[in-house]
Amino acid sequence: MTQREAARVLDHPEVSEIRLEGVLHALSDPVRLTIVRDLAAMDTELACSHFELPVTKSTTTHHFRVLRESGVVRQCYRGTTKLNGLRRAELAELFPGLLDSVLTAAAAEEARITG
Amino acid sequence: MTQREAARVLDHPEVSEIRLEGVLHALSDPVRLTIVRDLAAMDTELACSHFELPVTKSTTTHHFRVLRESGVVRQCYRGTTKLNGLRRAELAELFPGLLDSVLTAAAAEEARITG
Repeated sequence: MTQREAARVLDHPEVSEIRLEGVLHALSDPVRLTIVRDLAAMDTELACSHFELPVTKSTTTHHFRVLRESGVVRQCYRGTTKLNGLRRAELAELFPGLLDSVLTAAAAEEARITG
Repeated sequence: MTQREAARVLDHPEVSEIRLEGVLHALSDPVRLTIVRDLAAMDTELACSHFELPVTKSTTTHHFRVLRESGVVRQCYRGTTKLNGLRRAELAELFPGLLDSVLTAAAAEEARITG
């Protein structure tokens, strides 16, 4: 691998390194929860630029970094685009039912508040 | 209610004021998660002094406050003792399955790390 390629491979925790506290922290922010809900709903990899978020570009980058470092999303470059995918199967293996219950709760809360 | 009694009634969010993000944040700290697991396991109200936590008294007070203000626990005075109870039924009504999946995940993670 050349130095340039190595710089473009982003660090991710192995499954054994993912911690419940880190995942809950990652999900406890409204912007990050919006990102995770969109990824879950689309069920595909999405570019950071796909998301219309009420924060600056650098804050967006920070939020994606928290999601990646906690093990919630996997980020990879395709050309110059950074793609994001939910690590759904790995999270389900580690913490059965957790992500689904958070997604359900987020949808219920949105309906409750806006409804 | 006398002034002295009023000062000893602690503020709690109504069910309609409890937010998913706040609950997830409350659960994302290892000390607070330990408290919640103990409360769930004992299924009764427990005094703050019951918990043997690796933090100072003032940090313990802070953690209980975060748990109370997020709607995860209910605190009340009985005499001079502050008792803590998990708001399990209310959380289950708002966010079905969420607390149980977090408790299961915490137990699984403990087994995975220590085992």
